[in-house]
Amino acid sequence: MTYCVGIKVNEGMVFASDRRTNAGLDNFNSYSKMYVHNSIDRNIIILTSGNLATSQAVFNSIGKDLEDDKNGNNLNNLYSLNEIAKYIGRLNVKHSSPDGINQETIELGSTFIVGGQIKGQDPNLLLVYPEGNFIEASDDQPFFQIGETKYGKPIIVRAYDKGLSFGEAIKLLLVSFDSTIKANVSVGLPIDLCTLKGSSFKISNQVRIDQDNKYFKNISENWGSSLKK
Amino acid sequence: MTYCVGIKVNEGMVFASDRRTNAGLDNFNSYSKMYVHNSIDRNIIILTSGNLATSQAVFNSIGKDLEDDKNGNNLNNLYSLNEIAKYIGRLNVKHSSPDGINQETIELGSTFIVGGQIKGQDPNLLLVYPEGNFIEASDDQPFFQIGETKYGKPIIVRAYDKGLSFGEAIKLLLVSFDSTIKANVSVGLPIDLCTLKGSSFKISNQVRIDQDNKYFKNISENWGSSLKK
Repeated sequence: MTYCVGIKVNEGMVFASDRRTNAGLDNFNSYSKMYVHNSIDRNIIILTSGNLATSQAVFNSIGKDLEDDKNGNNLNNLYSLNEIAKYIGRLNVKHSSPDGINQETIELGSTFIVGGQIKGQDPNLLLVYPEGNFIEASDDQPFFQIGETKYGKPIIVRAYDKGLSFGEAIKLLLVSFDSTIKANVSVGLPIDLCTLKGSSFKISNQVRIDQDNKYFKNISENWGSSLKK
Repeated sequence: MTYCVGIKVNEGMVFASDRRTNAGLDNFNSYSKMYVHNSIDRNIIILTSGNLATSQAVFNSIGKDLEDDKNGNNLNNLYSLNEIAKYIGRLNVKHSSPDGINQETIELGSTFIVGGQIKGQDPNLLLVYPEGNFIEASDDQPFFQIGETKYGKPIIVRAYDKGLSFGEAIKLLLVSFDSTIKANVSVGLPIDLCTLKGSSFKISNQVRIDQDNKYFKNISENWGSSLKK
């Protein structure tokens, strides 16, 4: 399984994803599920859950289309975040429905959270479904979760506020991840994290949080003891 | 859906279940999912989730067997909690596999939490599966949840301690229910609650918590604001 979250606050957006992948309980691996792209006029962050082969095929196609930038659409020449979500949806459907596979019995689809900003446009956060269609975040739905979403949802629902600073939003997501990691062995450290600041058009706080991260340990322990109180 | 919890602490056991049932999003009802039986030598509490018709058929059979107490097993003449769990398992399988139903495509099974105490024996907490078999609680697994279990699990995992008083354990379960109710519309108030005290062999705190319950409102609001802090 997987757990990824993208969240919108006044200051911008915060993204987090775990790195654990599994094909059965006896086959765990560690892969990044976060794709970060920046160029002169745009910052784009993509998170993924679902079928790992499909997710990787989509990320590979995105990279290939960027190199081969004379032909067709790519992350750099699409003119809006919505168009980028559509593009990722098309790649998703293409790679999850190879010839010769009976799609009634075998599901290979992935889900993507797409967030980012193109210069001159508002930041946007979108969710791309395995079927290739997508929805946008709104004031009533200012965050998207994908993968193992339930354990970590109550804390976000209760403590979210659009006025949260990046520091507070990161803390909130780490608590949400800690709740999920404690409950589902197929979600695990390290966590990839990054923030996108709307006003300064900058990706920052791009870190990888692993077992030895003192801040995460601290949050996990203090949260547990504060809850008991 | 449904959410039920049975939890063991040093003082005894605490049980809680919501009352909302649904057959599709447009068909909600309110039924108790808690069956409380006490006689001179035993206290037994049964919680259920799953197919409502099966759960009610099992509860009806339990009642009928008690009235018709000359023939066969019933809650009063079975000599241990394990035997009672087996008995409920048999009723469950019987009522969830009526003749003429293709069991490969239609699943009608229910799940039961069975807790209680027979005089002269230790209190015990068990989980009966749709297949009719069961497991026992242990020090490492001192609680069982059935139904919509994920949203309410992180708080129990973190704050559970076998030294909790009944008051603290009730508070913990209400927070867990509040998290679930906020996240899944098919789990809803009222909540049925009761405790079983091991030393005094007594069922108490048998209450129904509805929309107007001030204690629940208070916990829900304070918990939200304390979490933010």
